[in-house]
Amino acid sequence: MTISKTKPKAGPKAKPPRVRLDVDERRAQLLELGIAAFGARAYDDVSLDELAQSAGVSKGLVFHYFGSKRDFYVAGLRESARRLLASTLAESVAEPLVSLRRGLDQYLRYVKAHGAAYRALFQGGIGSDPEVAAVVEETRQAFLGQILNRLGDKLARHPPPLVRTSLRGWVGAVEAASLDWVAHDDLPAAEVRELLVELLVATMTRLAGVI
Amino acid sequence: MTISKTKPKAGPKAKPPRVRLDVDERRAQLLELGIAAFGARAYDDVSLDELAQSAGVSKGLVFHYFGSKRDFYVAGLRESARRLLASTLAESVAEPLVSLRRGLDQYLRYVKAHGAAYRALFQGGIGSDPEVAAVVEETRQAFLGQILNRLGDKLARHPPPLVRTSLRGWVGAVEAASLDWVAHDDLPAAEVRELLVELLVATMTRLAGVI
Repeated sequence: MTISKTKPKAGPKAKPPRVRLDVDERRAQLLELGIAAFGARAYDDVSLDELAQSAGVSKGLVFHYFGSKRDFYVAGLRESARRLLASTLAESVAEPLVSLRRGLDQYLRYVKAHGAAYRALFQGGIGSDPEVAAVVEETRQAFLGQILNRLGDKLARHPPPLVRTSLRGWVGAVEAASLDWVAHDDLPAAEVRELLVELLVATMTRLAGVI
Repeated sequence: MTISKTKPKAGPKAKPPRVRLDVDERRAQLLELGIAAFGARAYDDVSLDELAQSAGVSKGLVFHYFGSKRDFYVAGLRESARRLLASTLAESVAEPLVSLRRGLDQYLRYVKAHGAAYRALFQGGIGSDPEVAAVVEETRQAFLGQILNRLGDKLARHPPPLVRTSLRGWVGAVEAASLDWVAHDDLPAAEVRELLVELLVATMTRLAGVI
Protein backbone atom coordinates (compact mmCIF):
# COMPACT_ATOMS: atom_id res chain seq x y z
CA MET A 1 0.00 0.00 0.00
CA THR A 2 1.43 3.37 -1.00
CA ILE A 3 0.73 6.47 0.98
CA SER A 4 -0.19 9.51 -1.07
CA LYS A 5 2.06 12.50 -0.48
CA THR A 6 -0.67 15.05 -1.09
CA LYS A 7 -3.04 15.50 1.81
CA PRO A 8 -6.72 15.36 0.89
CA LYS A 9 -8.03 18.87 0.35
CA ALA A 10 -10.13 20.29 3.14
CA GLY A 11 -12.60 23.18 3.01
CA PRO A 12 -15.94 23.69 1.33
CA LYS A 13 -14.79 22.33 -2.04
CA ALA A 14 -13.75 18.95 -0.62
CA LYS A 15 -16.07 16.10 -1.63
CA PRO A 16 -17.14 13.83 1.20
CA PRO A 17 -16.01 10.23 0.60
CA ARG A 18 -18.62 8.07 -1.16
CA VAL A 19 -19.80 5.52 1.36
CA ARG A 20 -21.75 2.43 0.29
CA LEU A 21 -25.16 2.28 1.96
CA ASP A 22 -27.93 -0.18 1.23
CA VAL A 23 -30.99 1.07 -0.64
CA ASP A 24 -33.15 1.76 2.43
CA GLU A 25 -30.34 3.47 4.32
CA ARG A 26 -29.49 5.67 1.35
CA ARG A 27 -33.12 6.65 0.82
CA ALA A 28 -33.52 7.43 4.53
CA GLN A 29 -30.30 9.48 4.53
CA LEU A 30 -31.41 11.53 1.50
CA LEU A 31 -34.91 12.02 2.95
CA GLU A 32 -33.37 13.32 6.18
CA LEU A 33 -31.20 15.77 4.25
CA GLY A 34 -34.22 16.82 2.19
CA ILE A 35 -36.37 17.46 5.28
CA ALA A 36 -33.58 19.58 6.77
CA ALA A 37 -32.95 21.53 3.53
CA PHE A 38 -36.61 22.17 2.62
CA GLY A 39 -37.32 23.00 6.25
CA ALA A 40 -34.56 25.60 6.46
CA ARG A 41 -35.05 27.37 3.12
CA ALA A 42 -37.80 28.24 0.67
CA TYR A 43 -38.44 25.58 -1.98
CA ASP A 44 -36.86 27.53 -4.83
CA ASP A 45 -33.70 28.17 -2.80
CA VAL A 46 -32.96 24.50 -2.17
CA SER A 47 -30.21 23.22 -4.49
CA LEU A 48 -30.29 19.49 -5.19
CA ASP A 49 -26.70 19.76 -6.45
CA GLU A 50 -25.51 20.92 -3.03
CA LEU A 51 -27.69 18.40 -1.26
CA ALA A 52 -26.36 15.50 -3.34
CA GLN A 53 -22.80 16.73 -2.82
CA SER A 54 -23.21 16.85 0.95
CA ALA A 55 -24.50 13.27 0.88
CA GLY A 56 -21.56 12.23 -1.30
CA VAL A 57 -23.84 11.00 -4.09
CA SER A 58 -24.76 12.18 -7.58
CA LYS A 59 -27.82 14.34 -8.21
CA GLY A 60 -28.96 11.54 -10.52
CA LEU A 61 -29.23 9.20 -7.52
CA VAL A 62 -31.59 11.66 -5.79
CA PHE A 63 -33.79 11.61 -8.91
CA HIS A 64 -33.48 7.82 -9.01
CA TYR A 65 -34.93 7.56 -5.49
CA PHE A 66 -37.49 10.37 -5.56
CA GLY A 67 -38.38 11.15 -9.18
CA SER A 68 -38.20 14.95 -9.23
CA LYS A 69 -37.42 17.88 -6.93
CA ARG A 70 -41.12 18.36 -6.34
CA ASP A 71 -41.69 14.67 -5.52
CA PHE A 72 -38.66 14.79 -3.21
CA TYR A 73 -40.23 17.77 -1.46
CA VAL A 74 -43.61 16.04 -1.15
CA ALA A 75 -41.95 12.88 0.28
CA GLY A 76 -40.13 15.00 2.88
CA LEU A 77 -43.31 16.91 3.72
CA ARG A 78 -45.25 13.67 4.22
CA GLU A 79 -42.59 12.24 6.52
CA SER A 80 -42.32 15.54 8.39
CA ALA A 81 -46.11 15.69 8.89
CA ARG A 82 -46.12 12.03 10.02
CA ARG A 83 -43.52 12.79 12.70
CA LEU A 84 -45.34 15.91 13.85
CA LEU A 85 -48.57 13.95 14.22
CA ALA A 86 -46.78 11.10 15.99
CA SER A 87 -45.21 13.52 18.46
CA THR A 88 -48.51 15.23 19.25
CA LEU A 89 -50.30 11.85 19.41
CA ALA A 90 -47.78 10.58 21.98
CA GLU A 91 -48.97 13.39 24.25
CA SER A 92 -52.61 12.44 24.04
CA VAL A 93 -52.45 9.83 26.81
CA ALA A 94 -51.91 12.58 29.39
CA GLU A 95 -54.61 14.69 31.03
CA PRO A 96 -56.42 16.72 28.29
CA LEU A 97 -55.09 20.22 29.05
CA VAL A 98 -51.60 18.93 29.82
CA SER A 99 -51.54 17.01 26.55
CA LEU A 100 -52.96 19.98 24.61
CA ARG A 101 -50.19 22.21 25.97
CA ARG A 102 -47.49 19.68 25.14
CA GLY A 103 -48.96 19.10 21.68
CA LEU A 104 -49.03 22.84 20.96
CA ASP A 105 -45.47 23.20 22.25
CA GLN A 106 -44.39 20.48 19.79
CA TYR A 107 -46.28 22.23 17.00
CA LEU A 108 -44.78 25.66 17.73
CA ARG A 109 -41.29 24.16 17.97
CA TYR A 110 -41.89 22.62 14.55
CA VAL A 111 -43.11 25.92 13.10
CA LYS A 112 -40.09 27.77 14.52
CA ALA A 113 -37.62 25.18 13.22
CA HIS A 114 -39.20 25.21 9.74
CA GLY A 115 -40.02 28.94 9.59
CA ALA A 116 -39.41 29.67 5.90
CA ALA A 117 -40.86 26.35 4.75
CA TYR A 118 -43.94 26.73 6.96
CA ARG A 119 -44.67 30.17 5.56
CA ALA A 120 -44.20 29.00 1.96
CA LEU A 121 -46.59 26.14 2.65
CA PHE A 122 -49.45 28.34 3.81
CA GLN A 123 -48.86 31.47 1.75
CA GLY A 124 -49.13 30.28 -1.82
CA GLY A 125 -45.81 29.25 -3.39
CA ILE A 126 -45.33 25.49 -3.21
CA GLY A 127 -48.47 25.29 -1.05
CA SER A 128 -50.65 25.80 -4.12
CA ASP A 129 -49.43 22.56 -5.74
CA PRO A 130 -52.47 20.23 -5.57
CA GLU A 131 -50.51 17.29 -4.11
CA VAL A 132 -48.85 19.51 -1.50
CA ALA A 133 -52.22 21.07 -0.62
CA ALA A 134 -53.56 17.51 -0.20
CA VAL A 135 -50.79 16.61 2.29
CA VAL A 136 -51.55 19.80 4.26
CA GLU A 137 -55.27 19.01 4.25
CA GLU A 138 -54.66 15.38 5.34
CA THR A 139 -52.46 16.60 8.18
CA ARG A 140 -55.17 19.02 9.31
CA GLN A 141 -57.75 16.22 9.20
CA ALA A 142 -55.48 13.91 11.19
CA PHE A 143 -54.95 16.70 13.74
CA LEU A 144 -58.70 17.18 14.05
CA GLY A 145 -59.09 13.40 14.28
CA GLN A 146 -56.75 13.34 17.27
CA ILE A 147 -58.78 15.99 19.06
CA LEU A 148 -62.09 14.33 18.18
CA ASN A 149 -60.84 10.89 19.26
CA ARG A 150 -60.44 12.24 22.76
CA LEU A 151 -64.12 13.13 22.72
CA GLY A 152 -65.13 9.56 21.88
CA ASP A 153 -65.27 7.14 18.92
CA LYS A 154 -68.74 8.06 17.73
CA LEU A 155 -67.98 11.78 17.66
CA ALA A 156 -64.74 11.18 15.80
CA ARG A 157 -66.54 9.23 13.09
CA HIS A 158 -69.56 11.51 12.71
CA PRO A 159 -68.85 14.92 14.21
CA PRO A 160 -71.97 17.16 14.32
CA PRO A 161 -71.61 20.11 11.88
CA LEU A 162 -71.06 22.69 14.62
CA VAL A 163 -68.32 20.59 16.23
CA ARG A 164 -66.57 20.13 12.88
CA THR A 165 -66.83 23.79 11.82
CA SER A 166 -65.74 25.01 15.27
CA LEU A 167 -62.67 22.79 15.39
CA ARG A 168 -61.74 23.69 11.82
CA GLY A 169 -61.98 27.31 12.91
CA TRP A 170 -59.65 26.61 15.82
CA VAL A 171 -57.12 24.90 13.53
CA GLY A 172 -57.33 28.00 11.29
CA ALA A 173 -56.53 30.16 14.32
CA VAL A 174 -53.55 27.92 15.16
CA GLU A 175 -52.17 28.27 11.63
CA ALA A 176 -52.77 32.01 11.31
CA ALA A 177 -51.37 32.85 14.77
CA SER A 178 -48.33 30.61 14.13
CA LEU A 179 -47.65 32.32 10.79
CA ASP A 180 -47.86 35.75 12.40
CA TRP A 181 -45.68 34.64 15.30
CA VAL A 182 -42.94 33.12 13.13
CA ALA A 183 -43.00 36.12 10.75
CA HIS A 184 -42.51 38.67 13.57
CA ASP A 185 -40.63 36.58 16.12
CA ASP A 186 -41.47 38.98 18.96
CA LEU A 187 -43.39 36.76 21.42
CA PRO A 188 -42.42 33.85 23.68
CA ALA A 189 -43.84 30.57 22.34
CA ALA A 190 -45.57 30.00 25.69
CA GLU A 191 -47.76 33.10 25.20
CA VAL A 192 -48.89 31.91 21.78
CA ARG A 193 -49.54 28.45 23.23
CA GLU A 194 -51.68 29.83 26.07
CA LEU A 195 -53.64 31.98 23.63
CA LEU A 196 -54.44 28.88 21.55
CA VAL A 197 -55.30 26.82 24.63
CA GLU A 198 -57.74 29.51 25.72
CA LEU A 199 -59.37 29.61 22.28
CA LEU A 200 -59.88 25.84 22.30
CA VAL A 201 -61.27 25.94 25.84
CA ALA A 202 -63.70 28.69 24.77
CA THR A 203 -64.66 26.60 21.70
CA MET A 204 -65.19 23.46 23.79
CA THR A 205 -67.22 25.34 26.36
CA ARG A 206 -69.49 26.53 23.58
CA LEU A 207 -69.77 22.99 22.19
CA ALA A 208 -70.61 21.47 25.60
CA GLY A 209 -74.31 21.43 24.75
CA VAL A 210 -73.77 19.66 21.40
CA ILE A 211 -71.27 16.99 22.41
CA MET B 1 -87.54 54.16 -42.81
CA THR B 2 -88.26 50.59 -43.89
CA ILE B 3 -89.56 48.02 -41.50
CA SER B 4 -87.87 44.63 -41.71
CA LYS B 5 -90.24 41.75 -42.29
CA THR B 6 -88.16 39.26 -40.30
CA LYS B 7 -88.55 39.52 -36.59
CA PRO B 8 -85.25 39.71 -34.63
CA LYS B 9 -84.28 36.23 -33.45
CA ALA B 10 -84.92 35.55 -29.78
CA GLY B 11 -83.40 32.85 -27.58
CA PRO B 12 -79.89 32.16 -26.26
CA LYS B 13 -78.19 32.85 -29.62
CA ALA B 14 -79.57 36.38 -29.96
CA LYS B 15 -76.96 39.10 -29.50
CA PRO B 16 -78.02 41.88 -27.16
CA PRO B 17 -78.07 45.21 -28.95
CA ARG B 18 -74.83 47.20 -28.70
CA VAL B 19 -75.54 50.23 -26.58
CA ARG B 20 -73.15 53.21 -26.52
CA LEU B 21 -71.91 53.89 -22.99
CA ASP B 22 -69.23 56.37 -22.00
CA VAL B 23 -65.84 55.02 -20.91
CA ASP B 24 -66.53 55.05 -17.16
CA GLU B 25 -69.98 53.54 -17.51
CA ARG B 26 -68.70 50.78 -19.77
CA ARG B 27 -65.83 49.97 -17.43
CA ALA B 28 -68.19 49.91 -14.44
CA GLN B 29 -70.64 47.68 -16.32
CA LEU B 30 -67.91 45.18 -17.26
CA LEU B 31 -66.48 45.20 -13.73
CA GLU B 32 -69.94 44.42 -12.35
CA LEU B 33 -70.33 41.51 -14.76
CA GLY B 34 -66.82 40.32 -13.85
CA ILE B 35 -67.51 40.41 -10.10
CA ALA B 36 -70.70 38.42 -10.63
CA ALA B 37 -69.04 35.87 -12.95
CA PHE B 38 -65.86 35.32 -10.91
CA GLY B 39 -67.96 35.24 -7.76
CA ALA B 40 -70.26 32.54 -9.07
CA ARG B 41 -67.73 30.22 -10.71
CA ALA B 42 -64.13 29.10 -10.33
CA TYR B 43 -61.62 31.27 -12.19
CA ASP B 44 -60.89 28.71 -14.92
CA ASP B 45 -64.61 28.23 -15.60
CA VAL B 46 -65.27 31.90 -16.36
CA SER B 47 -65.52 32.52 -20.11
CA LEU B 48 -64.68 36.06 -21.24
CA ASP B 49 -66.36 35.30 -24.57
CA GLU B 50 -69.69 34.72 -22.82
CA LEU B 51 -69.17 37.68 -20.53
CA ALA B 52 -68.44 40.03 -23.45
CA GLN B 53 -71.42 38.67 -25.34
CA SER B 54 -73.77 39.28 -22.43
CA ALA B 55 -72.52 42.87 -22.25
CA GLY B 56 -72.99 43.27 -25.98
CA VAL B 57 -69.33 44.12 -26.55
CA SER B 58 -66.34 42.39 -28.09
CA LYS B 59 -63.89 40.37 -25.98
CA GLY B 60 -61.23 42.77 -27.26
CA LEU B 61 -62.95 45.62 -25.45
CA VAL B 62 -62.69 43.72 -22.14
CA PHE B 63 -58.94 43.35 -22.77
CA HIS B 64 -58.78 47.02 -23.76
CA TYR B 65 -60.18 48.03 -20.36
CA PHE B 66 -58.56 45.44 -18.11
CA GLY B 67 -55.46 44.05 -19.85
CA SER B 68 -55.88 40.31 -19.31
CA LYS B 69 -58.28 37.82 -17.74
CA ARG B 70 -56.08 37.71 -14.63
CA ASP B 71 -55.96 41.52 -14.35
CA PHE B 72 -59.73 41.62 -14.86
CA TYR B 73 -60.09 39.12 -12.00
CA VAL B 74 -57.76 41.13 -9.74
CA ALA B 75 -59.67 44.37 -10.49
CA GLY B 76 -62.94 42.64 -9.58
CA LEU B 77 -61.44 41.15 -6.42
CA ARG B 78 -60.16 44.56 -5.33
CA GLU B 79 -63.55 46.20 -5.85
CA SER B 80 -65.30 43.30 -4.15
CA ALA B 81 -62.98 43.50 -1.11
CA ARG B 82 -63.46 47.30 -1.00
CA ARG B 83 -67.23 46.88 -0.83
CA LEU B 84 -67.01 44.16 1.81
CA LEU B 85 -64.80 46.38 3.97
CA ALA B 86 -67.08 49.37 3.42
CA SER B 87 -70.13 47.33 4.47
CA THR B 88 -68.46 46.05 7.64
CA LEU B 89 -67.05 49.53 8.40
CA ALA B 90 -70.52 51.04 8.17
CA GLU B 91 -71.48 48.79 11.08
CA SER B 92 -68.67 49.97 13.30
CA VAL B 93 -70.52 53.02 14.64
CA ALA B 94 -72.92 50.78 16.56
CA GLU B 95 -72.35 49.20 19.97
CA PRO B 96 -69.29 46.83 19.70
CA LEU B 97 -71.04 43.45 19.92
CA VAL B 98 -73.96 44.60 17.78
CA SER B 99 -71.57 45.87 15.12
CA LEU B 100 -69.44 42.70 15.32
CA ARG B 101 -72.52 40.55 14.74
CA ARG B 102 -73.66 42.70 11.81
CA GLY B 103 -70.16 42.72 10.34
CA LEU B 104 -69.90 38.93 10.57
CA ASP B 105 -73.35 38.56 9.03
CA GLN B 106 -72.19 40.69 6.09
CA TYR B 107 -69.05 38.60 5.79
CA LEU B 108 -70.87 35.26 5.88
CA ARG B 109 -73.41 36.52 3.33
CA TYR B 110 -70.48 37.45 1.10
CA VAL B 111 -68.86 34.03 1.56
CA LYS B 112 -72.14 32.27 0.77
CA ALA B 113 -72.77 34.36 -2.34
CA HIS B 114 -69.23 33.81 -3.62
CA GLY B 115 -68.83 30.20 -2.45
CA ALA B 116 -66.75 28.74 -5.29
CA ALA B 117 -64.66 31.88 -5.70
CA TYR B 118 -64.04 32.16 -1.95
CA ARG B 119 -62.81 28.57 -1.78
CA ALA B 120 -60.53 29.01 -4.79
CA LEU B 121 -59.10 32.13 -3.18
CA PHE B 122 -58.05 30.39 0.02
CA GLN B 123 -57.27 26.90 -1.22
CA GLY B 124 -54.51 27.39 -3.74
CA GLY B 125 -55.69 27.93 -7.31
CA ILE B 126 -55.86 31.60 -8.22
CA GLY B 127 -55.10 32.43 -4.55
CA SER B 128 -51.45 31.49 -5.06
CA ASP B 129 -50.94 34.30 -7.62
CA PRO B 130 -48.72 36.84 -5.80
CA GLU B 131 -50.88 39.84 -6.71
CA VAL B 132 -54.07 38.03 -5.67
CA ALA B 133 -52.41 36.93 -2.40
CA ALA B 134 -51.47 40.59 -1.83
CA VAL B 135 -55.11 41.72 -2.22
CA VAL B 136 -56.21 39.03 0.26
CA GLU B 137 -53.49 40.08 2.72
CA GLU B 138 -54.39 43.79 2.37
CA THR B 139 -58.04 42.96 3.02
CA ARG B 140 -57.10 40.99 6.15
CA GLN B 141 -54.97 43.91 7.35
CA ALA B 142 -57.79 46.37 6.71
CA PHE B 143 -60.17 44.09 8.62
CA LEU B 144 -57.76 43.94 11.55
CA GLY B 145 -57.35 47.70 11.30
CA GLN B 146 -61.11 48.16 11.69
CA ILE B 147 -61.12 46.04 14.85
CA LEU B 148 -58.03 47.75 16.25
CA ASN B 149 -59.39 51.21 15.49
CA ARG B 150 -62.24 50.52 17.86
CA LEU B 151 -59.66 49.92 20.58
CA GLY B 152 -58.07 53.33 20.06
CA ASP B 153 -55.72 55.17 17.67
CA LYS B 154 -52.49 54.31 19.44
CA LEU B 155 -53.28 50.60 19.54
CA ALA B 156 -54.23 50.61 15.87
CA ARG B 157 -50.90 52.16 14.88
CA HIS B 158 -48.68 50.07 17.17
CA PRO B 159 -50.50 46.95 18.34
CA PRO B 160 -48.55 45.01 21.00
CA PRO B 161 -47.31 41.65 19.60
CA LEU B 162 -49.82 39.57 21.59
CA VAL B 163 -52.72 41.73 20.39
CA ARG B 164 -51.58 41.44 16.76
CA THR B 165 -50.95 37.66 16.89
CA SER B 166 -54.22 37.03 18.73
CA LEU B 167 -56.32 38.99 16.27
CA ARG B 168 -54.55 37.37 13.30
CA GLY B 169 -55.42 34.04 14.89
CA TRP B 170 -59.05 35.08 15.14
CA VAL B 171 -59.13 36.15 11.47
CA GLY B 172 -57.64 32.72 10.64
CA ALA B 173 -60.49 31.10 12.57
CA VAL B 174 -63.03 33.22 10.66
CA GLU B 175 -61.58 32.14 7.30
CA ALA B 176 -61.20 28.44 8.19
CA ALA B 177 -64.67 28.16 9.78
CA SER B 178 -66.22 30.01 6.80
CA LEU B 179 -64.51 27.66 4.32
CA ASP B 180 -65.75 24.61 6.21
CA TRP B 181 -69.23 26.07 6.50
CA VAL B 182 -69.56 26.96 2.79
CA ALA B 183 -68.08 23.58 1.74
CA HIS B 184 -70.59 21.56 3.81
CA ASP B 185 -73.56 23.94 3.86
CA ASP B 186 -75.12 22.17 6.86
CA LEU B 187 -75.28 24.95 9.48
CA PRO B 188 -77.35 28.15 9.84
CA ALA B 189 -75.15 31.23 9.31
CA ALA B 190 -76.22 32.52 12.74
CA GLU B 191 -74.56 29.56 14.50
CA VAL B 192 -71.27 30.19 12.71
CA ARG B 193 -71.55 33.89 13.52
CA GLU B 194 -72.14 33.22 17.24
CA LEU B 195 -69.19 30.83 17.33
CA LEU B 196 -66.93 33.53 15.87
CA VAL B 197 -68.32 36.19 18.23
CA GLU B 198 -67.55 33.94 21.18
CA LEU B 199 -64.00 33.33 19.97
CA LEU B 200 -63.37 37.07 19.64
CA VAL B 201 -64.86 37.73 23.07
CA ALA B 202 -62.57 35.01 24.54
CA THR B 203 -59.59 36.57 22.72
CA MET B 204 -60.43 40.07 23.94
CA THR B 205 -60.94 38.87 27.50
CA ARG B 206 -57.48 37.36 27.39
CA LEU B 207 -56.04 40.59 25.96
CA ALA B 208 -57.70 42.77 28.62
CA GLY B 209 -54.49 42.93 30.62
CA VAL B 210 -52.40 44.01 27.60
CA ILE B 211 -54.68 46.63 26.06
